[in-house]
Amino acid sequence: MAELGYEQLRIYLDNQQYQELQTVLNQLHPVDIVQLLNDLSADDQKLVFELLDIEVASDVLPHLPDQILEYILADIHTNKLVKIIDEMETDEAADIISEMKEEDSEELLAKIDQQDSQNIKQLLNYDEDSAGGLMQTEIIAVQKSAKRDQLIEDIRKNYDEVEKLNYVYVVDDENRLIGNLDIAKLLLAKPERKAEDIMEPVVISAPVDMDQEHVANLFRKYDIYTLPVVDSENHLLGRITVDDIIDVIDEEASEDAYKMVGLESEDRVFTSPLSSVKKRLPWLTLNLFTALLVSSVVGIFEQTIARLSFLAVLMPIVAGLGGNSGTQTLTVITRGIALGELTIRNTYRAIFKEITVGLINGIIVGSFAMLIAYLLRGDIILGIVLGSAMVCNMFIAGLVGSLIPVIMKMLKIDPALASSVIITMLTDIGGFASFLGLATLFVK
Amino acid sequence: MAELGYEQLRIYLDNQQYQELQTVLNQLHPVDIVQLLNDLSADDQKLVFELLDIEVASDVLPHLPDQILEYILADIHTNKLVKIIDEMETDEAADIISEMKEEDSEELLAKIDQQDSQNIKQLLNYDEDSAGGLMQTEIIAVQKSAKRDQLIEDIRKNYDEVEKLNYVYVVDDENRLIGNLDIAKLLLAKPERKAEDIMEPVVISAPVDMDQEHVANLFRKYDIYTLPVVDSENHLLGRITVDDIIDVIDEEASEDAYKMVGLESEDRVFTSPLSSVKKRLPWLTLNLFTALLVSSVVGIFEQTIARLSFLAVLMPIVAGLGGNSGTQTLTVITRGIALGELTIRNTYRAIFKEITVGLINGIIVGSFAMLIAYLLRGDIILGIVLGSAMVCNMFIAGLVGSLIPVIMKMLKIDPALASSVIITMLTDIGGFASFLGLATLFVK
Repeated sequence: MAELGYEQLRIYLDNQQYQELQTVLNQLHPVDIVQLLNDLSADDQKLVFELLDIEVASDVLPHLPDQILEYILADIHTNKLVKIIDEMETDEAADIISEMKEEDSEELLAKIDQQDSQNIKQLLNYDEDSAGGLMQTEIIAVQKSAKRDQLIEDIRKNYDEVEKLNYVYVVDDENRLIGNLDIAKLLLAKPERKAEDIMEPVVISAPVDMDQEHVANLFRKYDIYTLPVVDSENHLLGRITVDDIIDVIDEEASEDAYKMVGLESEDRVFTSPLSSVKKRLPWLTLNLFTALLVSSVVGIFEQTIARLSFLAVLMPIVAGLGGNSGTQTLTVITRGIALGELTIRNTYRAIFKEITVGLINGIIVGSFAMLIAYLLRGDIILGIVLGSAMVCNMFIAGLVGSLIPVIMKMLKIDPALASSVIITMLTDIGGFASFLGLATLFVK
Repeated sequence: MAELGYEQLRIYLDNQQYQELQTVLNQLHPVDIVQLLNDLSADDQKLVFELLDIEVASDVLPHLPDQILEYILADIHTNKLVKIIDEMETDEAADIISEMKEEDSEELLAKIDQQDSQNIKQLLNYDEDSAGGLMQTEIIAVQKSAKRDQLIEDIRKNYDEVEKLNYVYVVDDENRLIGNLDIAKLLLAKPERKAEDIMEPVVISAPVDMDQEHVANLFRKYDIYTLPVVDSENHLLGRITVDDIIDVIDEEASEDAYKMVGLESEDRVFTSPLSSVKKRLPWLTLNLFTALLVSSVVGIFEQTIARLSFLAVLMPIVAGLGGNSGTQTLTVITRGIALGELTIRNTYRAIFKEITVGLINGIIVGSFAMLIAYLLRGDIILGIVLGSAMVCNMFIAGLVGSLIPVIMKMLKIDPALASSVIITMLTDIGGFASFLGLATLFVK
């Protein structure tokens, strides 16, 4: 497969050697073209996309980030887009069309292949995060009574439509799914064997409205490459391929990492600044209120701080370590829930463990801190107060870091939303209150 | 497929109805059995595992968490384990054996099927995070000159060995990989066609020492289901299947989430408390030193705080919002790097964007804070100082949250290690220094 670096591309563009560029470009892997487009200005992106052959363009378009896709769709000639869409699989075409303005998409759907158009319209009705939103309608369905050579003929007729064929699906007279037929088994079958003799009758399938996270779990559980999709009466509608599931898994992993810090999934590296501001502002406002709450707890001890100003110097240590320790616990528990290791039944063990870890780490790190405070300030009582506050706060960190996501899970709220902001608020309050409280009582 | 809930399992166990339990258990999906084992005590885990048929046990064992696997391996009779291992694919068997004590694994390897034993020993030499560690040696290789019916015979002979067969591999006389042969294409081929006529000659393959993250990227890029593995002279060694890649992707996503908060991947929900303590302690100690650094910055302003104790009440607000804003930026940038959206070339745009977002959010949230401080304390200068410090610190948050992971990427250090602890330290210092510094100058 050919290669083209950014510097070379830049030279072609700057010298306007479009014909030479076109030749090289169309030999690249589509994903490499997407990567190159990422590095270009909006105008150059359009220019380079224009140089792509229809078939290459049809492989590039589904992999473009939303923002570049928007630029390209805004400018592209409808007739060219029609040709590109006709080359795509229905699930990819539906994803592209769902990003278009309604009048544009209607014009497009009227111009592309009739059968595809109908299938795509059907796909557009499904939630994009459901099995229906993931499936393609290109499948080969065969009748259960068909014999080997008939089956091979059926496959031959539809072979060009379907990529990476490892199973065909066996249906009854009313298109209800009754079996999986492994191509390799068909290859080894004797001529008189019928589809129903060779197929595996127990079929794992996804209802068309199943959430994509559940669909991904079916792929994880059964180690399958493709999964048929059916409606509520078990009629065969399409299939989901594992490469789309890898995209789902990547997407869900991003989402979990994002939720932990209060980000929306559409807030990407090159989302426009204003749009990022809007998306992050509600959460930062919430954060302002949690910070005010923390501040008001410190306010209770303002008289103590007026008397002993060095407490203000040391108090960030207690809060900081508690916050980080709590976020560690939160991450372990949330990931355990996401991977299904943590069930309601074994939860108390997990919480107990995290508290134990918090306590032991608190005692060890607290002892260091006690020593350091004593050496710096020469006050043993202050050292003991600092150390005790740290033990206390890391106990709190273990408790809230594990308890809160578990409670959220029980209330059927996504535990990833038990984001760092809530845990940090609680460990800040715990840290400041325990340190300043103990200091008020004991430090002279 | 049968189902068995925990409550029902508990009843079987408590009433010692082992025979009835055995019947139900062996009809379950292996992954469901793993789930049930998770909820049991160590003794019950062993007991339930004992009840499994050899074949079911061979499907359950590779999916067990390390800790349960350890219990089971410690107690199992070698002859039974030999039978179980003989049922497994080589890659799974190698994973299990690598967890055993050396004397046990040697005894086992001497007792299992000779050919498998040799293959497994070979696999054990590869790094478990490399292509060699992921591959299975069960493959079908065919000669390029073989005709259709010969190919079908070759496949028939080896069919039972290989699960989910969609490709066989075409090799030359010296077992060097020269092509992929799609089973569906072979099904449709005429009798006189040879392997080399039907195969796709351009083969994507993984060198045996390729890192698993790169292997996963090949699956992402080429949307493939299986990938052949070769040595440095292109000799065919094995294949990697996409279900193992999904495990890799899950594992890498966990790792990234973990690294951000300084956790090691082996630190799971049910890792023993002492082992978790040991794993988390070095990072918390580092954290203690960053906290001391922050504290020493506050220390510079101890005189100011002695004079104006309410500054200590308000200062956590500036630091807290900066920390959260910086972690948001860090997450967006790190994820952008992981998904390959961010390249060295478009980096300055990303940094500029994050600074802009930080500034705008700082101005908005800072204005709220200014107003609140004024209302609470009746001091407009204090309000302005608080607001300005927040703008300043959220600018810092945007800068360090984007710059640090990018610099780490350039230095070829994993950007996920630019963990929250470093960013939080910098925004803490930025927040305290700007707020207390401005207050020292302007607040009376």
